[in-house]
Amino acid sequence: MTKMLQREGLSERALTIADKVEKFVRETVAPYERDPRIGAHGPSDALGDELKALAHEAGVMTPHILDDGGHLTQRETAAVLIRSGLSPLGPLACHTCAPDEGNMYLMGKVASPELKERFLTRMVDGSMRTAFFMTEPAEDGGAGSDPSMMLTTCKMDGNHWVVNGRKTYITGADGAGMGIIMAKSDDGACMFLVDLPDPAIRIERVLDTIDSSMPGGHAVITIDNLRIPADQMLGESGEGFKYAQVRLAPARLSHCMRWLGACVRAHEIATDYANRRMAFGKQLIDHEGVGFMLAENLMDLKQAELMIYWCADVLDSGAQGGAESSMAKVAVSEALMRVADRCVQCMGGQGVTADTIVEQVFREIRAFRIYDGPTEVHKWSLAKKIKRDWKAEHAG
Amino acid sequence: MTKMLQREGLSERALTIADKVEKFVRETVAPYERDPRIGAHGPSDALGDELKALAHEAGVMTPHILDDGGHLTQRETAAVLIRSGLSPLGPLACHTCAPDEGNMYLMGKVASPELKERFLTRMVDGSMRTAFFMTEPAEDGGAGSDPSMMLTTCKMDGNHWVVNGRKTYITGADGAGMGIIMAKSDDGACMFLVDLPDPAIRIERVLDTIDSSMPGGHAVITIDNLRIPADQMLGESGEGFKYAQVRLAPARLSHCMRWLGACVRAHEIATDYANRRMAFGKQLIDHEGVGFMLAENLMDLKQAELMIYWCADVLDSGAQGGAESSMAKVAVSEALMRVADRCVQCMGGQGVTADTIVEQVFREIRAFRIYDGPTEVHKWSLAKKIKRDWKAEHAG
Amino acid sequence: MTKMLQREGLSERALTIADKVEKFVRETVAPYERDPRIGAHGPSDALGDELKALAHEAGVMTPHILDDGGHLTQRETAAVLIRSGLSPLGPLACHTCAPDEGNMYLMGKVASPELKERFLTRMVDGSMRTAFFMTEPAEDGGAGSDPSMMLTTCKMDGNHWVVNGRKTYITGADGAGMGIIMAKSDDGACMFLVDLPDPAIRIERVLDTIDSSMPGGHAVITIDNLRIPADQMLGESGEGFKYAQVRLAPARLSHCMRWLGACVRAHEIATDYANRRMAFGKQLIDHEGVGFMLAENLMDLKQAELMIYWCADVLDSGAQGGAESSMAKVAVSEALMRVADRCVQCMGGQGVTADTIVEQVFREIRAFRIYDGPTEVHKWSLAKKIKRDWKAEHAG
Amino acid sequence: MTKMLQREGLSERALTIADKVEKFVRETVAPYERDPRIGAHGPSDALGDELKALAHEAGVMTPHILDDGGHLTQRETAAVLIRSGLSPLGPLACHTCAPDEGNMYLMGKVASPELKERFLTRMVDGSMRTAFFMTEPAEDGGAGSDPSMMLTTCKMDGNHWVVNGRKTYITGADGAGMGIIMAKSDDGACMFLVDLPDPAIRIERVLDTIDSSMPGGHAVITIDNLRIPADQMLGESGEGFKYAQVRLAPARLSHCMRWLGACVRAHEIATDYANRRMAFGKQLIDHEGVGFMLAENLMDLKQAELMIYWCADVLDSGAQGGAESSMAKVAVSEALMRVADRCVQCMGGQGVTADTIVEQVFREIRAFRIYDGPTEVHKWSLAKKIKRDWKAEHAG
Repeated sequence: MTKMLQREGLSERALTIADKVEKFVRETVAPYERDPRIGAHGPSDALGDELKALAHEAGVMTPHILDDGGHLTQRETAAVLIRSGLSPLGPLACHTCAPDEGNMYLMGKVASPELKERFLTRMVDGSMRTAFFMTEPAEDGGAGSDPSMMLTTCKMDGNHWVVNGRKTYITGADGAGMGIIMAKSDDGACMFLVDLPDPAIRIERVLDTIDSSMPGGHAVITIDNLRIPADQMLGESGEGFKYAQVRLAPARLSHCMRWLGACVRAHEIATDYANRRMAFGKQLIDHEGVGFMLAENLMDLKQAELMIYWCADVLDSGAQGGAESSMAKVAVSEALMRVADRCVQCMGGQGVTADTIVEQVFREIRAFRIYDGPTEVHKWSLAKKIKRDWKAEHAG
Repeated sequence: MTKMLQREGLSERALTIADKVEKFVRETVAPYERDPRIGAHGPSDALGDELKALAHEAGVMTPHILDDGGHLTQRETAAVLIRSGLSPLGPLACHTCAPDEGNMYLMGKVASPELKERFLTRMVDGSMRTAFFMTEPAEDGGAGSDPSMMLTTCKMDGNHWVVNGRKTYITGADGAGMGIIMAKSDDGACMFLVDLPDPAIRIERVLDTIDSSMPGGHAVITIDNLRIPADQMLGESGEGFKYAQVRLAPARLSHCMRWLGACVRAHEIATDYANRRMAFGKQLIDHEGVGFMLAENLMDLKQAELMIYWCADVLDSGAQGGAESSMAKVAVSEALMRVADRCVQCMGGQGVTADTIVEQVFREIRAFRIYDGPTEVHKWSLAKKIKRDWKAEHAG
Repeated sequence: MTKMLQREGLSERALTIADKVEKFVRETVAPYERDPRIGAHGPSDALGDELKALAHEAGVMTPHILDDGGHLTQRETAAVLIRSGLSPLGPLACHTCAPDEGNMYLMGKVASPELKERFLTRMVDGSMRTAFFMTEPAEDGGAGSDPSMMLTTCKMDGNHWVVNGRKTYITGADGAGMGIIMAKSDDGACMFLVDLPDPAIRIERVLDTIDSSMPGGHAVITIDNLRIPADQMLGESGEGFKYAQVRLAPARLSHCMRWLGACVRAHEIATDYANRRMAFGKQLIDHEGVGFMLAENLMDLKQAELMIYWCADVLDSGAQGGAESSMAKVAVSEALMRVADRCVQCMGGQGVTADTIVEQVFREIRAFRIYDGPTEVHKWSLAKKIKRDWKAEHAG
Repeated sequence: MTKMLQREGLSERALTIADKVEKFVRETVAPYERDPRIGAHGPSDALGDELKALAHEAGVMTPHILDDGGHLTQRETAAVLIRSGLSPLGPLACHTCAPDEGNMYLMGKVASPELKERFLTRMVDGSMRTAFFMTEPAEDGGAGSDPSMMLTTCKMDGNHWVVNGRKTYITGADGAGMGIIMAKSDDGACMFLVDLPDPAIRIERVLDTIDSSMPGGHAVITIDNLRIPADQMLGESGEGFKYAQVRLAPARLSHCMRWLGACVRAHEIATDYANRRMAFGKQLIDHEGVGFMLAENLMDLKQAELMIYWCADVLDSGAQGGAESSMAKVAVSEALMRVADRCVQCMGGQGVTADTIVEQVFREIRAFRIYDGPTEVHKWSLAKKIKRDWKAEHAG
């Protein structure tokens, strides 16, 4: 078990699960990292199934959801998801990946028993991938990073809802067995569960993006007169933004967890390289130019981990954690970018090849600084909050 | 009480003391910040005495040391020392300042009951300032950031030790009532307690430095045949480096605590400014160029706070915490430099004047990046540790 | 002569003057750097006079203005002013300092022969210091970084103008023999030349600022019914902003020139230190942590120099150079901040003392990032320009 | 023609060629950027041939080499190569790409008339790609960034040289028609020209790297008893390092030129995006968070351009320019990384897709910070030079 990751302040059950996950990811999953079945959008479905079967066997499928359907706390989830991320293939194998993890979390909080039975069971056991249809194309004047601009509509027609619109950056839509779709009714935003594929949901194209860990990639979608039975609405009509908020902070934080794991591993690879290779007459690590980068990694990784646990505690206290998860998302993603960049740089020419996962992790983190809200959008909302707080304090 | 500082995970007694200290520093001490008796080396001794009397009155003198002589845990100390730092005058008023705080800590751990009674009592009640004589002038080929190069010697002569050498950056030596002096015997490093002033300890000059919060400033000292009674040795002969280690990490961390408090306050001042002033047709904070800087401060301040509590927990667990306190020192000092720099910048022309403490805090933090080991020395030792750990893991 | 500064592309006359100035500043001025007559606002007037006498003797008084009243090109001026800045005392000694340099430049461009004779002669020969009264207190809702908000007024009364208002950051006002005052008439902004001191111009206070090279410091001023004979108006009524523009870019660039010189010198001092001192068993410079900082300085200093000459060429081509001088100001000031910070850091404890000029240069550059428009104001105006240019290109 | 690129200080012939190249790259080449024949290692050979035919037609094939075989000065070359880089396909189309450009330069300087006729003609007219076999695998204990560690050998056998060894990062080896091979004889390093493919030169594998603009990618090569006729030695035996030096600085600088062009274009794309898209109620560019990034790009691009022309002038003066080209390489590659990163960030989700070249440019520049010597190797050699210069200045 890595000594870099914190054990203090974690429950026994969390550590037990986390250790099992770490062992599985390091010993069973990592050897697949150069498998030729991995492409521009992660492992093929065949490889994905093979990895999931191994996770079942090892007892680490959806490890943050307990056998009784209960969910680890966010603090405990962090311990587990960080370890699942020690390989870019780990979250897929253990089914702790996005958007499934967030979708399961949301369903657990909001879905009726009927919908849970119908959909959630197959999600938790890893037998299908799912997608979350929220973001809309900025070129349509749509949501982008700003959800209030949603253009997709839903209208009642008999006992069905009819949905029309376009969505983009829909991760995993291609190949998903179920989707959660967000659309606007007269009451406000709504969410629906739909079986996939569906002929009314057309994949225009799968984007060719800098990251490559997500099966199905990120798709642009047209929804054309999709008819959804009324009982497949998630929760109440008009409450969709509230539910999106429920999903928002934990899902955002779970990205931080997984990518922290990936960067811990990248740092291990770079450290190993720096200890084995020579340049200009001494070991690479004995060059301060290299050793200092590794030392800076230690600090950035520790700070990222502390921010994650801090934010997890805020969420566990029952708060919605909008500002805190914005802070965590920005601080962690920017710190991990520095870490990934230094790992590449320490390894020189080797760092920019796919011979190790370092090169991929660098690309993934670059995208992560934009996915789930670019750094600047979070700073913008934090600045608004600073102003609001100042006003509240100086009011009256 | 500020909402920016963490209350979770802190004991009742720590919060009670911390709140009392915060109230005292904000309401009683801060109004003295533009007192004309403050000079290039902080408040005059008269002003210092006035502030200490107020601290006694408010029940916050040396607040991290309990009435029974016990010491708060490092975690609890952090809660208190951070608040004491909310004004640059606060640590002086509450006697949580360097080098006294570290000297008291060391005495508490190592001194015999006799030495405690003779020296420690007057330290804890704030009736004298003290100094710690370790660093030696680099131009003599001496210690600098590298303590193994110590040149100051001590030799037994009857029942006295005779000390000779030069020291530099001796904070507070000018005006101190007691000093802890480090010198080398044939056994190795030794520590002594001496009453000050002493004619054998000559202040060559007080350095003119960029920081200005420390009474007495930082002095260059010649020790010329100083005779110290043998019973004023602290602990055992040859154990001086071990004692220095005892003092090292907590003292290093206490700097982080106090300066975090100062930067929280600087951030409040900058936030207030940005909410009150207009430029180019809107409030300053509504300019993203300013609002984003304040948002970045939020994140840096939070990360600094988390690093401090993390390192405090390591120390409370009984570990010596060399690497962890190096990580905390570098991460916190560099983060606070960014914070202080942004506060100055947000306030424009106002930020570079002494009209608020922001300008001073900026200068203090610049020095802090060097005092107690420059950033580079800590990175160097962290790189060594990474190499050692790698070797241990890959050995036989 | 330093090899770090460019000689290529410079005229013979520029190099001749520049070399003379460099020799004077290094050999004659630099030895005064630790003179006790230097205080919080630079050298006393007595020391200033002593240095100016030496400059006269060495033939380097106001060296960028030729004997026939002509002015070097901006490119040539750069070569000279950079060298004059090799000591913080240099610009004062050679009278290439702010605000005098800019005031002389403006007078040369705009003043009538009568006003030139009456005022400019004494400026060029260094026999008086001058001030430029433009910036107004932000707390009055006044100009700050935004000149359109000017509140100071001038009204005709007989053949006098009567001026009322408040000004701030008026560099050198305390002790100046002449001032250029900006105020608004019904026609728009106006400029006036006035002899100083004048009882109607009251120095409220001299700001206590982080920088300390400017004689007279930066003052807050009340102008109370100041009566100025109509023939002391500079140029035409209502044209004041146009004249301010004439002065703006060259004056802004001249700051860059002088501070580049100071940072070249700071780099020399740090390099010397790193070559002479040992730490952890080798010369400081042999530690990559130090050597890399010096290498980074080389690049930042070169880029700063190139930006200055590039912008000088733009101005010499007859363009007003608003955007270019904004780019130069930001790029140079931020680069020099990094340089000054690294010089401090390379020198460790020595770097934060006033034993060398490095500590002062660090403080000066911190202020420079705000004076003459904070970095953010320039970025704001550059972003506007990018938008304007895009629109122009995509217009019908 | 773009206004961002400098025209001042350039000869008429350089501007004429540069303008023709810019027009060709923007109007003819750029439309091919999303051609499906572009893969992980740039355009297919068929597409490459199509683009080269268009370049011939437009009169811009190898535009920096004149019809009489003469070569533009480095300053003139910069003007041309920067423009050729305005599309990642441009250097390939115009045959200004690496390693061909450097190979042609080297041949022009060192090759005998016979070798020029035999090889150079086909290089200049673009009818074959070439490779440069210098770097060796670090895992063999070979050269890496440190050429003195070369392990590949050449031995005389009759009137042939027999070469054995391994090489890595051999750009364009796969598909090249000619190669320059570096190997060590008893005299020292030697260079040879060889027709490719050759059965004795086996491509072990083509590396899967983060960049994707170079046809043929970067290969790992085994050379197994390659027999080369003695008259195909380039220059003299033992002079190989000297020739490598001749090629080194100009080739290094030509990377800077091409990538500057690419980043100018990326900046144009990001600017266009920021002017067209809305977010949170206003145009993206009206958000300072975005506008400031574009303003910072302006400054970084200008500084990169100035560094390139400065270094070009040094080379044109006849100097070898080792230190200057190290400074330019580091300053330019790090500045362009910041530019490319900001372009991605300004464009949000769009920035990480291959819908525009911005995503590719980001990846290319990441590799560029390592290719031709990682940043740290250049800083290391600059620190050595600083030490050498200091010693020389202070020598007895």
